[in-house]
Amino acid sequence: MSKNKILLAIADGVGDRPVECLGGRTPLEYARKPTLDALAATGSSGIMDLYKLGSPVGTDLGHMLLFGYEYADYPGRGPIEAFGEGVELQAGDVAFRANFATVDSELVVVDRRAGRIRQDTDKLAAALNGMQIEDIRVVFKEATEHRAVLILRGPGLSEEISDTDPKVEALKYKKAKATAPTAEAEKTARILNQFLLQANEVLLAHPVNREREAAGKLPANFILTRGAGIMPNLRKTAEDLKVRAACIAAESTVLGVARLAGIKPITDPRFTGNIDTDIALKAKTAVEALKDNDFVVLHFKAPDLMGHDNNPEGKVKAVETFDRLMGFVMEGLSSVEENVIVALAADHSTPCERREHSGDPVPVLISGRNIRKDGNTTFDEMAAARGGLNRVSANMFFNHLMDYLEATKKRGN
Amino acid sequence: MSKNKILLAIADGVGDRPVECLGGRTPLEYARKPTLDALAATGSSGIMDLYKLGSPVGTDLGHMLLFGYEYADYPGRGPIEAFGEGVELQAGDVAFRANFATVDSELVVVDRRAGRIRQDTDKLAAALNGMQIEDIRVVFKEATEHRAVLILRGPGLSEEISDTDPKVEALKYKKAKATAPTAEAEKTARILNQFLLQANEVLLAHPVNREREAAGKLPANFILTRGAGIMPNLRKTAEDLKVRAACIAAESTVLGVARLAGIKPITDPRFTGNIDTDIALKAKTAVEALKDNDFVVLHFKAPDLMGHDNNPEGKVKAVETFDRLMGFVMEGLSSVEENVIVALAADHSTPCERREHSGDPVPVLISGRNIRKDGNTTFDEMAAARGGLNRVSANMFFNHLMDYLEATKKRGN
Repeated sequence: MSKNKILLAIADGVGDRPVECLGGRTPLEYARKPTLDALAATGSSGIMDLYKLGSPVGTDLGHMLLFGYEYADYPGRGPIEAFGEGVELQAGDVAFRANFATVDSELVVVDRRAGRIRQDTDKLAAALNGMQIEDIRVVFKEATEHRAVLILRGPGLSEEISDTDPKVEALKYKKAKATAPTAEAEKTARILNQFLLQANEVLLAHPVNREREAAGKLPANFILTRGAGIMPNLRKTAEDLKVRAACIAAESTVLGVARLAGIKPITDPRFTGNIDTDIALKAKTAVEALKDNDFVVLHFKAPDLMGHDNNPEGKVKAVETFDRLMGFVMEGLSSVEENVIVALAADHSTPCERREHSGDPVPVLISGRNIRKDGNTTFDEMAAARGGLNRVSANMFFNHLMDYLEATKKRGN
Repeated sequence: MSKNKILLAIADGVGDRPVECLGGRTPLEYARKPTLDALAATGSSGIMDLYKLGSPVGTDLGHMLLFGYEYADYPGRGPIEAFGEGVELQAGDVAFRANFATVDSELVVVDRRAGRIRQDTDKLAAALNGMQIEDIRVVFKEATEHRAVLILRGPGLSEEISDTDPKVEALKYKKAKATAPTAEAEKTARILNQFLLQANEVLLAHPVNREREAAGKLPANFILTRGAGIMPNLRKTAEDLKVRAACIAAESTVLGVARLAGIKPITDPRFTGNIDTDIALKAKTAVEALKDNDFVVLHFKAPDLMGHDNNPEGKVKAVETFDRLMGFVMEGLSSVEENVIVALAADHSTPCERREHSGDPVPVLISGRNIRKDGNTTFDEMAAARGGLNRVSANMFFNHLMDYLEATKKRGN
């Protein structure tokens, strides 16, 4: 018999709560999803806590837990973003999430996203990258739209430093402060504050901003930072288990966490991170990735967005699109020689009524010829709760999948 | 949409085992309980371990776990009782549960509860309160019936000291002994032993006891102690989460644990802690408390008492009374504007056949418009075990409830 391979499809934020306009059903319960239901009928479902019941997690931490990390491994958002943008972090680097923003002459924030700038942020970033403040070197790289990554590199820095993003507009940017009484934190705050002012000067004078202003657009004349973190020396979970793995996604956060785990990130401009993503191409890419990999992760973002927008009908559509994506995958798998186990999971619930991630458990599923059958015929939160996996943690679920790849270690004899 | 509020009703000791005289059913399975069953039909049930499967917990620890504390936070019964009686503990205070008891001239215990004394214990307590032994001050306060609280206050005390209550009658009181080889424990034992003898002298001569003897009643001429503990500096769980909370109960232990957690204790002389408690008033008080609070706990003691008495029919009646209490609550909730989620839990099982708390899991339930529906139609131990919450710990259950109040912290981004 050939060895098993695994395709893990992650429906971001798909877990929900009963919604009145859906007749008291959850979007998963309401949606037409023949492929997901067929998968449920050939495997075992369960409910999964990412960190712990009642404690919401972000997409980054949720994916870390799904990829075999522990809660304590979480390094903060800055390093995860930097990783996602392909910046190689060095020991001692402090990484921040950054936004291009617009401030007035009093440094009051006019727009936290600089008019949702999309063009030429690479040129603006290049003007900031390589700046030297005292003995610290600035690494600055643009990301999607108004987003960017800032890294301070050099001796004696700390991650214990406050956010400079005021989070709301019409307030002045917040000066960075040390959140611990150490010389390292004081130094980091001093360097960062100086960077922000120097960056403001450089950006004010930059041709890209002069052109924006001439065209009546808000200039990207300030950098707001948050989520300071130092990347610890984390093991690459998939690589450690000697599992050849790939992750197909649009979202840089997910791709970054994958790369962290030693899972090869695969993306394409046609993967949009929304409901209009090219599902046929995504399915094809996933099936192809199974040729060279034992573990392929396929990420689908739309359900989470619909939850954040409190759009239950949209979430139903997102689930139905996810179902079609999985339909394409199942078609494609018929040409794969190996036994492919298909698993479904989510990185957290995003209930429409909450408009935010919640600590409700998520439904999970593992399906295939050689997977125990629990008799479920649908895939949704409550069918899963009655399923054969009972209640598992994300860590247990990952470990369970790895065991089907015979990658986990036997203990005892 | 309005925010959620939560009413958590605790049926003390309600979990049980099959009882022969109930046709092999548990009291919960046997009882007629239309309101509890209706709640099951609109939510998710599960089974809950308070500490861990097979380890019985007391009412105090059970409620601490239900209110978000960890097992390691438990400070011992003495401090909990003191807290319940409204005694403000200071750092280093050693608190004991105390009984007024009757001893003979050889200090052999004749009655551990001094003829279940109910009257004038405040006068007896006043005669002991403020006593000074070496550099230690005695704080003594009467509680319900024969119960009282003893606090030793001063430098160099220890909680590592044995109980002086022999637990059975016709034995001499047990001299306190240090249970650790420290100067502090030795000192505490010496002070406590001297207090017991001085208290005996004061009580023998007290007019209240002369009157009791003249009336043919047993004198309350001795103090028996147990449950020594030092109150650690515990966080107030509800206050920490910024949740406005209240607890409606008769039992001082429950009220004390509530106060500890930053949950406002509410009681009334008509709440008896037994099956004759005024359930209409209790329901009304709970519904009213929802106006100013987001989290209201409603405690009902009777099932536990019936378990301790091995009275299955009585426990069935207690369950049916609890059901009527919840019926009054549900009627009252129709006038509350916010979405009120109703949760049911117990602090431990008290199986009739065991006559004591057991480590069997307890059934729990969370019910409401926006709670996932598991299709259960009854509320009992076994229906709950098949329910949508599967198996949770008390800590997870509390965290889950707090998440519905959006009081838990999101980790990651």
